[in-house]
Amino acid sequence: MTAVGWPLSLDDLRMAEAIIRPQIHWTPVLTSRSLDAIAGAELHFKCENFQKGGAFKFRGASHAVLCLSDAEAANGVATHSSGNHAAALALAATLRSVPTYVVMPRTTLQVKQQAVAAFGAEITLCEPTPEAREAGLAAVQARTGAVIIHPYNDERIIAGQASVGLELLGDVRRLNTILVPVGGGGLARGVCLAVAYLSPMTRVVGVEPEVADDARRSLEAGRIIPSQNPETIADGLRTSLGDLTFQVLQEHLENIVTVSEEAIARAMRLVWERLKIVIEPSAAVTAAVALEGLGDLAGQRVGVVLSGGNADLDRLPWL
Amino acid sequence: MTAVGWPLSLDDLRMAEAIIRPQIHWTPVLTSRSLDAIAGAELHFKCENFQKGGAFKFRGASHAVLCLSDAEAANGVATHSSGNHAAALALAATLRSVPTYVVMPRTTLQVKQQAVAAFGAEITLCEPTPEAREAGLAAVQARTGAVIIHPYNDERIIAGQASVGLELLGDVRRLNTILVPVGGGGLARGVCLAVAYLSPMTRVVGVEPEVADDARRSLEAGRIIPSQNPETIADGLRTSLGDLTFQVLQEHLENIVTVSEEAIARAMRLVWERLKIVIEPSAAVTAAVALEGLGDLAGQRVGVVLSGGNADLDRLPWL
Repeated sequence: MTAVGWPLSLDDLRMAEAIIRPQIHWTPVLTSRSLDAIAGAELHFKCENFQKGGAFKFRGASHAVLCLSDAEAANGVATHSSGNHAAALALAATLRSVPTYVVMPRTTLQVKQQAVAAFGAEITLCEPTPEAREAGLAAVQARTGAVIIHPYNDERIIAGQASVGLELLGDVRRLNTILVPVGGGGLARGVCLAVAYLSPMTRVVGVEPEVADDARRSLEAGRIIPSQNPETIADGLRTSLGDLTFQVLQEHLENIVTVSEEAIARAMRLVWERLKIVIEPSAAVTAAVALEGLGDLAGQRVGVVLSGGNADLDRLPWL
Repeated sequence: MTAVGWPLSLDDLRMAEAIIRPQIHWTPVLTSRSLDAIAGAELHFKCENFQKGGAFKFRGASHAVLCLSDAEAANGVATHSSGNHAAALALAATLRSVPTYVVMPRTTLQVKQQAVAAFGAEITLCEPTPEAREAGLAAVQARTGAVIIHPYNDERIIAGQASVGLELLGDVRRLNTILVPVGGGGLARGVCLAVAYLSPMTRVVGVEPEVADDARRSLEAGRIIPSQNPETIADGLRTSLGDLTFQVLQEHLENIVTVSEEAIARAMRLVWERLKIVIEPSAAVTAAVALEGLGDLAGQRVGVVLSGGNADLDRLPWL
């Protein structure tokens, strides 16, 4: 059990990491000379596709579930998610024998719906808008009394995701830049905090699909501008920032780079081909920045966070 | 430099491993609870898809090239191969600034032809039969004076491939069974030798596609029965045994299990989905044995050699 305060301290991040360590993977960092040659930079790929549940989300979900008291856990946990958080929460809850209730947009990939169902969660489908997701979740919570574990706007989740940054900084020294995908912002914020405490000279660059650039627009405008059901192949990045993530990203994120749908597909294919690993489109956005020569990375030592590997193997974006 | 004798001794295998160690990857062994549950066994996947050049072939090729004297290397090296050996040889030769000549069947995957060309090798295409390959290679050798490095019927190659076995036995103790694909038999023989010396209680089971079962038929008949251009998606396993490999496989291979084309495709997809790694059809044959309940593996601790990851990403066998 831990009491996570605001703002999260380095001790909070380390405590969270220690709590989840027994049940998460310390994921490998892969390199490739041929991809370095294409990028003109030294790329260190942090492979969260190898995390349990196939995505970094298991870190935050584990932490949130393990932080609950037995009384809190008794009625189960509930969330809304387009997939990876839901599967991660269901898996983490199962490990503690806690029931899980999930609200998912109807547009969620079948493969992700199946993963959630396979972990024994009860699924409620909703329209693919932020409002419908929140309303659906409120209804489920009223019915079950479950504790809501928001996919990113939750300090416990963010403290868990920060372990991606702790591991990466532990494995690779003197990174000039870390590229991190920005969906709801939980991963980006966790990485920003870890970097701010442990490697302040490293800049953190957020990456979004061009067609789902709500974080870029929000940070420019100085207020949260939600996206409305953006049509990107990076299904994990269709969500909008929350107030907790917005605040820290404003402070710590160097900038946001956006990538086209074509660039995402090309980068995804190239990572599969050269690194021999399966990553999903949402993970490929960071690789796309490096491999398309964006983000001013020339000659740099770059951490590339590959957020997950739950790709739909029946529908590849380059076919 | 090493002088490899016949039969290969444990010292020969260890010397070969020491020679190539500076330029090969010690590839990881991955596990998956969900795949274990499907197999009803404890599976340890030896991931040669992460080897340089994307396949185990780089081990033997490196060893063969590093064993050449400067005088021998002067005119270059030549081989015939349906892909992975050719790319591996070209890469190994490039590292020593030696030219490479490759005879490839016309049916070789474009992706593998391109890989060979990218390493600077000169390619000659031929008909997809053992005879045409040998004839084409003889012509190239007569023209160039290059040293022929046969893809598997060569002691230097086999001593290099044995390092797969040395690494696997070093990483995972008390394996009951090791599943290894059988194409020309170089990898199978290398693994058989390593096991015979270091873990004689472990049985080695060879795996072939049903439609390219020349090793099974040859071992049953007691003489080499070559396959004639078999039509399997496991393109790396279309070759036939050589006399060097045949002899040792007769002695050391427990038996041969064959798998259907459908089983290969299913296993390949399942490995991609659960392990999040890209393997090619030739590598999936071993996984197919485990995941389809073949080979009497129930409750066992099993080494599953995944031989490579050079899959054609534009043509997936399940689509």
